[in-house]
Amino acid sequence: MNVPLTPVRFLRYAHEQFPDQPAVVCGEERYNYAQFAGRAGRLAGALRECGVKAGDRVAFLSPNCHRLLEAYYGVLEAGAVLLPLNIRLAPHEVAYILNDAGATVLFLDQAFVPLVDSFRKNTATVRSFFLLNGTPHASWLSSENYEDLLASAQPYFADVMQFDENALAELFYTSGTSATPKGVMLTHRNVYLHAMDVAVGFTVPSEDVHLHTIPLFHANGWGAAHFITVMGGKHVMIRSFDPVEVLRLIARERVQSCFVVPIMAQALVHAPQRPEYDLSSLKWVVIGGSASSPTLVRDVKEKLGCDCFSGYGLTETAPVLAFSREKPGTCTKGPEHYERQAMTGYAIPGVEMRVVDATGADVPRDGRTIGEIITRADGVMEAYWQQAELTAEVLRDGWLHTGDMATVDAHGYALIADRKKDIIISGGENISSLEIEKMLMAHPSVYDAAVLPIPDEKWGEVPKAFVVLKPGAQATEPELLEFCRAHMAHYKAPRSVEFVAALPKNATGKTLKRDLRKHWSERGSQEPLIAQS
Amino acid sequence: MNVPLTPVRFLRYAHEQFPDQPAVVCGEERYNYAQFAGRAGRLAGALRECGVKAGDRVAFLSPNCHRLLEAYYGVLEAGAVLLPLNIRLAPHEVAYILNDAGATVLFLDQAFVPLVDSFRKNTATVRSFFLLNGTPHASWLSSENYEDLLASAQPYFADVMQFDENALAELFYTSGTSATPKGVMLTHRNVYLHAMDVAVGFTVPSEDVHLHTIPLFHANGWGAAHFITVMGGKHVMIRSFDPVEVLRLIARERVQSCFVVPIMAQALVHAPQRPEYDLSSLKWVVIGGSASSPTLVRDVKEKLGCDCFSGYGLTETAPVLAFSREKPGTCTKGPEHYERQAMTGYAIPGVEMRVVDATGADVPRDGRTIGEIITRADGVMEAYWQQAELTAEVLRDGWLHTGDMATVDAHGYALIADRKKDIIISGGENISSLEIEKMLMAHPSVYDAAVLPIPDEKWGEVPKAFVVLKPGAQATEPELLEFCRAHMAHYKAPRSVEFVAALPKNATGKTLKRDLRKHWSERGSQEPLIAQS
Repeated sequence: MNVPLTPVRFLRYAHEQFPDQPAVVCGEERYNYAQFAGRAGRLAGALRECGVKAGDRVAFLSPNCHRLLEAYYGVLEAGAVLLPLNIRLAPHEVAYILNDAGATVLFLDQAFVPLVDSFRKNTATVRSFFLLNGTPHASWLSSENYEDLLASAQPYFADVMQFDENALAELFYTSGTSATPKGVMLTHRNVYLHAMDVAVGFTVPSEDVHLHTIPLFHANGWGAAHFITVMGGKHVMIRSFDPVEVLRLIARERVQSCFVVPIMAQALVHAPQRPEYDLSSLKWVVIGGSASSPTLVRDVKEKLGCDCFSGYGLTETAPVLAFSREKPGTCTKGPEHYERQAMTGYAIPGVEMRVVDATGADVPRDGRTIGEIITRADGVMEAYWQQAELTAEVLRDGWLHTGDMATVDAHGYALIADRKKDIIISGGENISSLEIEKMLMAHPSVYDAAVLPIPDEKWGEVPKAFVVLKPGAQATEPELLEFCRAHMAHYKAPRSVEFVAALPKNATGKTLKRDLRKHWSERGSQEPLIAQS
Repeated sequence: MNVPLTPVRFLRYAHEQFPDQPAVVCGEERYNYAQFAGRAGRLAGALRECGVKAGDRVAFLSPNCHRLLEAYYGVLEAGAVLLPLNIRLAPHEVAYILNDAGATVLFLDQAFVPLVDSFRKNTATVRSFFLLNGTPHASWLSSENYEDLLASAQPYFADVMQFDENALAELFYTSGTSATPKGVMLTHRNVYLHAMDVAVGFTVPSEDVHLHTIPLFHANGWGAAHFITVMGGKHVMIRSFDPVEVLRLIARERVQSCFVVPIMAQALVHAPQRPEYDLSSLKWVVIGGSASSPTLVRDVKEKLGCDCFSGYGLTETAPVLAFSREKPGTCTKGPEHYERQAMTGYAIPGVEMRVVDATGADVPRDGRTIGEIITRADGVMEAYWQQAELTAEVLRDGWLHTGDMATVDAHGYALIADRKKDIIISGGENISSLEIEKMLMAHPSVYDAAVLPIPDEKWGEVPKAFVVLKPGAQATEPELLEFCRAHMAHYKAPRSVEFVAALPKNATGKTLKRDLRKHWSERGSQEPLIAQS
């Protein structure tokens, strides 16, 4: 018997087995699983009543809240495709995505009325704009808001056997540090199996209480929606990350787990109010999004009093591929332990992850040789939305090519060295720009740094550093070059340093190396890039 | 990306991630995951070298040992179908199964040479007989035994993308208390998803150490093979159940989990040698196979010092459907807790389980109304092997009809009342023969009891008891009838009691009610069934 693999089954299961259990806490609102499932069913009914057809894209522009979580089930139950939008994008980017995806309905938080108003005339496919909260004042908004829709809708629950597990379930656009946003197509089966893989790999406990610190529209946020539901766990929503509010919610809701990016972990560890809150319920914190550090892992373990390890994945992989918890049989202590749990880690069940050289051969497990991470996994996307060429670039020979460059140590733990396009190839050696940037950041005067390859007649490429100094701090080029040479292999040290006032960043705070590269190459090497203030 | 769901992936994963971890302990032999995977790969190679083709049935007649576990992966890796035989069957039953399945190869433990010799001439399809251990002396045995085969074979690992997840992986014959054995067809997908469902539902910890107390050829034994492997856990094999040997292995190997039938749990709890062994590693014991009891659950918890709950399933469901651990949010204490954890329980993730009346409607959750358990789940078999009619009888309207009759309580926990064919319908009420049997067994003079429906003009059917007294014990029919009426609803109490010397049993000790019924109906109600000794 083949029962279609769809995440809709997770909520049905929790509803059937744990109807009275707390399901979602959002501000002062609380719903048990019967209510949560009922609301998702009414959302599905409402969508069908307003003409949403199978395969239609339904977009949400919302910070984390229970309504967005309901959409993870209700939109799919209606047979439609969920399109969660990044709320930090610029208006033209949101418009681009809505048009590219051909979304027919947009639900928006009232905070984004002005933003949507600014581009709505340029989104031809969107038929209805619904407010998630508040009263619809503008004429272009549907007169019913989300709660009105639910109140008047008949619940709709599809026949689970009628789902096509290979149909599109979710469409997520990548943040795009490199190009125009691309729509990542995840099928029902992708999303279902990914949740099971994480539940097994992380051994998620039943009755987990999970704080959604990462936006659900983000790669490392949405995965948690499903494996918490199937375990009958409690979802605790937070509108935006605020360290004191996080601490307060952990204490109030007896939170057991959360996913954070390094800067969030930093903020929690160093929050002066931390000792005022009872964090004893906390069991595990996963650091993802960008590289963790042994110090950060130690700080989280000691100061938040819980297990802490890294999670690694991509939008294209639904997202989790790897984690850095100790493997069965290994049980390191002290610095070695923190170092290991700060690594990128090893594949969870359901995932094959290899690090390969340019010929496709696995790199030696020497902790030194850099190769590209490729993967074959249940969560790997179907394709990029209407981008056959880009899809073919990354899905080659049956493997997804991540573009992440990494080393592998003797225990099979990967450690990301760099993005492929940022790696510097100098005299045949791969040099990680990230490694040089980390080294520069360790200098007491450096606030921010980015390293680019520049052409060199003898070596092919050599690394060049762009450095922002801390306010009032002093450092010279020879001093920073010498600092690097003293602490890393000579061939890796940058050949030149240029001081800049700031580095170009995207909406989520990542350095836009493509902009830096473009500016540098257009200007040539003579003229200073950005005058230092 | 759709990676085929096949359990072969579990061993590949463990091999890749945990090559040096202990994988299998069998007597004094120990293999890590690299060795285990290597041996399974060589078994696959050997099978292909001796002409085994995709879809061929490869049979094993063996008690639990590492070689049988290797077959769970090696046979599938070769593209063939694993057919594990119940070693307690009579020769003609084994022969029937080999012929019915059309097995082409039989691996046998040396203990079964005389048994196989007795029927081998009647098994036309079997081309090769291989000894698993010992030296092949008989002329009909291949001159190479299992270890010779492995030593000379090239390892074979198929391209994982070439597996058809809907192809047959395992063929298990049901023990057959009711009819000729039927071959239960489980696909790669069935077996894969079942393992994931159990791992998630039971929250199997990584680094679990599992003692295979149940034969791997049994419904509640084989499921454990896969979820232990994917967690990188250690398989501890035991040839046959011996309480002292079990206690010794728990202590020696630091066993954390095992599945047992009630009689095994009894034996462990009451073993006089129990206090001599350190059982502190034990974390969870699952009681399955037949009904547990609150006393037994309490005894296991207190005397073995671990969690204890029931597991329920069928050969046809790969096998686990339900378990009785406390649901999130419920946390009963004392007698109520033991009572709950002795129930049949509620569905694990990936499983829908309903209890329905004759019209297909769910019975009320009143703990009293009896209906049939039906299920829709990832593990539900494809069909019975070459038995379209029998398949259509149980797989109806998209649900597997289990033939198990149960009640459901207010918390959604099922409790099996009886097998459907043994239920007694008296004056429109469902009466559980099992309940009457339990009641009779509670009488101090009763050693064994079985209850059958017999035709009655007024009530349609009424219950009749067949009772075996304890050696030297005395009891009269009126005394037992009165005992029942005093402790249960009058309409449920048996109308007559017949004393017999013994009840007909199958190879695994289950009462064969069909034989009892046949004897009784052929003989009529006048003549005593079996003279009491």
